[in-house]
Formats: sequence, C-alpha cells, structure tokens
Amino acid sequence: MNKNRIVLAHGDGGRLSRNLIEEIFAKAFANPELAPLADSALLALTGKRIAFTTDSYTVKPIFFPESDIGKLAVFGTVNDLSVMGARPLYLSCGFILEEGLEIEVLKRIVDSMKSASEMVGVKLVTGDTKVVEKGSADKIFINTSGIGELLNWRTMGKAPEPGDEILISGTIGEHGIAVLCARGELELKIPVKSDCAPVWELVSMLYQEKVNVKWMRDPTRGGVATCLNELVLGQGFGVMIGEDKIPVLDSVDSACEILGLDPLYLANEGKILCLVKKGEAERAREIMRKSQLGKKAEIIGEVISEPAGKVLVRTKVGGTRVLGMLAGAPLPRIC
Amino acid sequence: MNKNRIVLAHGDGGRLSRNLIEEIFAKAFANPELAPLADSALLALTGKRIAFTTDSYTVKPIFFPESDIGKLAVFGTVNDLSVMGARPLYLSCGFILEEGLEIEVLKRIVDSMKSASEMVGVKLVTGDTKVVEKGSADKIFINTSGIGELLNWRTMGKAPEPGDEILISGTIGEHGIAVLCARGELELKIPVKSDCAPVWELVSMLYQEKVNVKWMRDPTRGGVATCLNELVLGQGFGVMIGEDKIPVLDSVDSACEILGLDPLYLANEGKILCLVKKGEAERAREIMRKSQLGKKAEIIGEVISEPAGKVLVRTKVGGTRVLGMLAGAPLPRIC
Repeated sequence: MNKNRIVLAHGDGGRLSRNLIEEIFAKAFANPELAPLADSALLALTGKRIAFTTDSYTVKPIFFPESDIGKLAVFGTVNDLSVMGARPLYLSCGFILEEGLEIEVLKRIVDSMKSASEMVGVKLVTGDTKVVEKGSADKIFINTSGIGELLNWRTMGKAPEPGDEILISGTIGEHGIAVLCARGELELKIPVKSDCAPVWELVSMLYQEKVNVKWMRDPTRGGVATCLNELVLGQGFGVMIGEDKIPVLDSVDSACEILGLDPLYLANEGKILCLVKKGEAERAREIMRKSQLGKKAEIIGEVISEPAGKVLVRTKVGGTRVLGMLAGAPLPRIC
Repeated sequence: MNKNRIVLAHGDGGRLSRNLIEEIFAKAFANPELAPLADSALLALTGKRIAFTTDSYTVKPIFFPESDIGKLAVFGTVNDLSVMGARPLYLSCGFILEEGLEIEVLKRIVDSMKSASEMVGVKLVTGDTKVVEKGSADKIFINTSGIGELLNWRTMGKAPEPGDEILISGTIGEHGIAVLCARGELELKIPVKSDCAPVWELVSMLYQEKVNVKWMRDPTRGGVATCLNELVLGQGFGVMIGEDKIPVLDSVDSACEILGLDPLYLANEGKILCLVKKGEAERAREIMRKSQLGKKAEIIGEVISEPAGKVLVRTKVGGTRVLGMLAGAPLPRIC
C-alpha cells in the first residue's frame, strides 16, 4: 500500500478512514462543533432565521490560476448564502476521492479550504469522505452545504418595478476563461485569473447602508445572462442592459473573441448581480466601489415593462437583441 | 442529442439544466421552501436547537435488493440526524451525474427519494446538479445534507459507567451482504435484502418513553465493531459484547462464512446501536420490539471498567478476543 496515495480503505469507515479524518480534516478545520466527530454537528442557532444551500464541485482542472477546487467549494457555497441575504455561519463538506489521488494534493486542497473558511469566518462543522475505485471519479469531487443567518433585509424579495436598476460588482467572465485556459486543451495562453472570492463583504456593506436591494445573485454557471433570464422568467416585466456598460477585462474580451464566447454567459465566482430600487443605483455603486472586490462596479441596466419575460441588450452599434438562456455549446465542469 | 440520456448541457446552468430541475426535481420534491428554486432555501427554524450532517453516496450497484442509491441517500442522512437525537426536518441534495446516464434511471432514483422523504416527513428544500463527462464518474453520486431539530434528551451525551448496557435494534450485516451480492462479482446467489430504513421511529419511541440513553449510532460503514471502537477510543472504560447475543440472519451468517467476513464489520442501514443506563436495557428492548424495525432488538453487551479503550467479545466457545477497528480488506462503495 503506497502511503502517499488514497486507497480504498481510506473510505471504508475503519482505521485508515479515522486516520485521514484526524490527521487531515480535523486538524485543518479544528472547531468545537466539529470536534466530537459525531454523525451530526450540533449548532447554536436558536432564535435565528436560517438559509440552507448545497453545491457539488467537479471543476476541471482542480488547480487553476489564483484558485482551486477547495477554495471554490468554500466561496461558492458561502456566496450562495450571501446573495440570499444570509450571513454564512456553518459548512458541511463531503469528499468523493478517486483511488490513487496523492495525499499531498488532498492536503493542498484542504489547506486551501481552511484559509478560505477563515477568511470568511465560516466554520466547517461536519463532513464525510468516500473513496471510489480508480477510473470511477476524476480525482476529487467536493460537496459543501451551508447554513447562514438571514439578515433582516426588508426590501429583499420585493417586486421589481420599471425603472429599478441592475448593477454588477465588477468585470465578468474571468472564472470561465481562467478554467478553460487552465485545461490546456486550447492553444491559448491568456493570463486570466479566476475571480474566485467571497462576496459577503460586499453584501453586508449594502445591507449596513440600508440600500433598497430587491434581488441579488452570484452569476456562476450560465453567467449574467442566465441569472437575468431567471429573474424575468414568467414575470410581468423585462430587463434591458447596455452592452457598453458591462465591465469586461481586455484579456477576457480577446479570449472570448478567439473562442467565439459571449462573456455574458461565462461563469463568475466573486461577483454579485443585484437589482435596486429606482434612484438607488448610484449610491449602491459607490458603496460597492469602497470594497476591493467592488472597485469596478457598474450600473448595467434597468427593469422595463415591455417586453415582459425577456432580457434585451442594447448593442454597441445601437441595435437591440434578445439575450436568451444559455442553450449552445456547454462549458462543462467550470465549477 | 439523445433525449433519453443525460448530456453535458444538463449541467451547464442554462436551459437544459432548468428543464431538468423543473421537470424532474421540482415536481418530485414540491414544497414551499424549494419552490423559489433560489440559491438557498429559507427555513423556519426559529427557536430550535439544530443538528447538521452530510453524506455522499457512491454505492455500487445503484439498485440492489429492496433499495437503491436514492432511498439510501435519504434514509442514511435522516438516520445520522436521528441517532444524534434530532428530528429530521430538511435535506439538501447534490447530484453528480455521468454523461450518458439514462433519464429513466434518474427518474426512478428521484421517485425513490421522494417516497423515502415522504415516509419520514422530511423536506428536500435545496439542490444542485453537476454533469461530468462519460468516464469521469460512475453513473450517479448523491450528496445529501440534513438539518434536524434537537430533542431535549437530557441523558444523551452523559458519561458511560460500568454496567451500562448496549443494545442493537435488530439483525446485523444485511446491507453489506445485499450490496456485495448485487454486484454480481461473486458466484453467490444469497437472498439477502438490504435493511435500508429510517430509524427515526425507533429513536422517537425511546425518547417518548424517557429511556436513559447516553449514546446512539447507526452502524453503517465499518459496522457495529467500528462504532463500538469509536465509543471507547481514548476513554477510561471498555465494552464487552457476547458473540451469542448478536442477532444475525442465517443467510447473512452463511454468506459471511463463505466470504470470510465478520458480520460485526458489515454495514447496516436501518439499525441503531445504543448505550443505556444500567437497569434500563430490558425496558429499552421491549420498547424497540413494539416497532416493526425493532422486532429483533437484543441486549448485546455492557460497559466494563477494564481494559479501558478496548472492545472485547466473549466468543461462543467461551474465550475472549479483542475486536479492533476495521483494518483489513476494504468493502468499497457499500454506501
């Protein structure tokens, strides 16, 4: 048995499983709720309104510029809580490991999860590890589920009205391009880093400043275009965005042109897309710009009454096009 | 694109992802908390003490006698909450699907999860689906995380004392043998069904009857032997069990003999192992026997002061042996 690699016995619930948990997971994520290593963690949440979310991460490759699957698994779930207006508190973590994975690789990923959790102040309190035979998974898949405390943000969920404005907290498409390039399948060397980051700070600033935010999302898989389509789907209003208002890095723009991709459909992992009441957009933008993560925040569009249920783009050359949901060539395993 | 199979675009966050969610998942698990299909579910848990758990399921094969990966994913996580003394309330569900999986197979699994959830009264409130390329996973992996409301069970967690007794709620080893036989790798046709079932009813009966339970587990991977070893690990007490007291079906016993396995190390998916205060064991056994799931409950052993930190077995021939943690040939992908 090679001691440097994951073997099937690491997943059988016996001694090697226990060693793995104690030497790698429990050490990295040490906290009082995790310490009993019991079947469930017991949490002190009395009197709090709760948000609950889950995501599995299968990103390929598992390491990519500025990030890795572990960091993504923490920030991705933390961001899903944040955009619902919930302060991230607790995470669970389920690993599926492929037999033969180097233990050093697992350690690097766990260390990355540890730093990411500490950065946001979220505790990893319960976990599970399964090992499957070589060839039955691709290195490592991670599921994180998260529990957050719902803020008392009264405007959240209120019905959008024409004139309400839409903001994005920064440049779009970096994560998608960074992962695609890191795969090495493309003859493309573009220095794009993933934007993988926790958006909680941005969200809490908007909350503390009592911005009238009605809706918020983090535009991951399917990008800004898909989130906006989900916003208007079956509703009595539409959305119009201005192509020239969308912040995009030059490097991402070039990559998109070469690859025939639209940045509006690319995944982001450290951005928020939000809808604020008419007249609040400039204040919201200035608040976001005070944070490092929101320096390039822009107002990109507004709610319109007609056509309902559609997302329109005012193009740079002055025309208008409908922005549908992603329905073309899929970009698999981007998160 | 073959409409009967999972394709990569089912996981890209666009239109096909949406269709899959609406037509399969949202329909099966319809409930008010899931309905918004937002990034997190918002839960009404105010004033409750919470237990939180997670498990990934990679069982192979995905269908086996009396059960399947979906049922297992619901009951397994529900049981992890139950044995911590928590009433199961909410589940999340993360699917990792292999490209090419038949949609009919996914539907069967989802239907099974739906029935299982309804049987226990637990709501599946948030989910996620990823699709990986053919060959990068084995058909389907499911993660479920669960939230439960902690009962006010004051004896739970109290220190075990010599003379405290240990009970098992029924015959052991069925799940492990059922899955091994269902793989078809063995030249073995033994009619053993998995015991996959929710133990919540058993747990709540013991609670309602105010049984002085100090510790409870569901002996899954690693079996009864591993759970008992975790109980005594590093503690100032040991455990002695009687080999002749352990309930085992004849069919499981024969299979174990042929395969060279010890039922004490085999996985169970519908049993509880509990430690009750001295003098309470017979009452606990009679309470369990009132439930269909506990008809074969037995008192199997007791807490001893010496040797500390060890699990001993009084064998049928009158000797004594130490029962270590599982450390032999692993039984991979049993759950």
